[in-house]
Amino acid sequence: MVCEGSPEVRVGKKPVMNYVLAVLTTLMEQNVGAVVVKARGRNITKAVDTVEIVRSRFAKNVKVKNIDVGSHEITVNDPQTNQQRTRRVSSIEICLSKE
Amino acid sequence: MVCEGSPEVRVGKKPVMNYVLAVLTTLMEQNVGAVVVKARGRNITKAVDTVEIVRSRFAKNVKVKNIDVGSHEITVNDPQTNQQRTRRVSSIEICLSKE
Repeated sequence: MVCEGSPEVRVGKKPVMNYVLAVLTTLMEQNVGAVVVKARGRNITKAVDTVEIVRSRFAKNVKVKNIDVGSHEITVNDPQTNQQRTRRVSSIEICLSKE
Repeated sequence: MVCEGSPEVRVGKKPVMNYVLAVLTTLMEQNVGAVVVKARGRNITKAVDTVEIVRSRFAKNVKVKNIDVGSHEITVNDPQTNQQRTRRVSSIEICLSKE
């Protein structure tokens, strides 16, 4: 797999252009042939946006090699009962590589 | 490709369980070996949730065969200038198949 051990960019709450810039600068480094864009929950849409903006506007030689989706169990504090409970959250991993 | 010509489920504004049910009933039909889950914009997260709920809770023999991301140009009416302009929207297509 081209993406194992590649540097990763975790998409979170910041504006999408922050992550576009992070992906571009990571791909520009020497010895980096691929980068993995990861996100959870509602940030999944932002991860796809990041990849699409990189591909369509900045780096047309970048290709999507592989996409994985999965779930994680996270522990949250229920504010009503003040008890811990687990919740399922979806996640995505998109592997981008230079041609 | 296992997914070409397969029936599709388009994820939109409704609650996620509506789409989980749509995927399950489509997969239960005879002669259907695969289904494509499609979404655009902020519904991308809901499409991933749909797939993960189907896989983890209801149909453990269902596998993700392929995932594609892309962009579409849509025409929107700018409420401030009342003019038409185009906007880029990300999209996702997830192909699910029975084992």
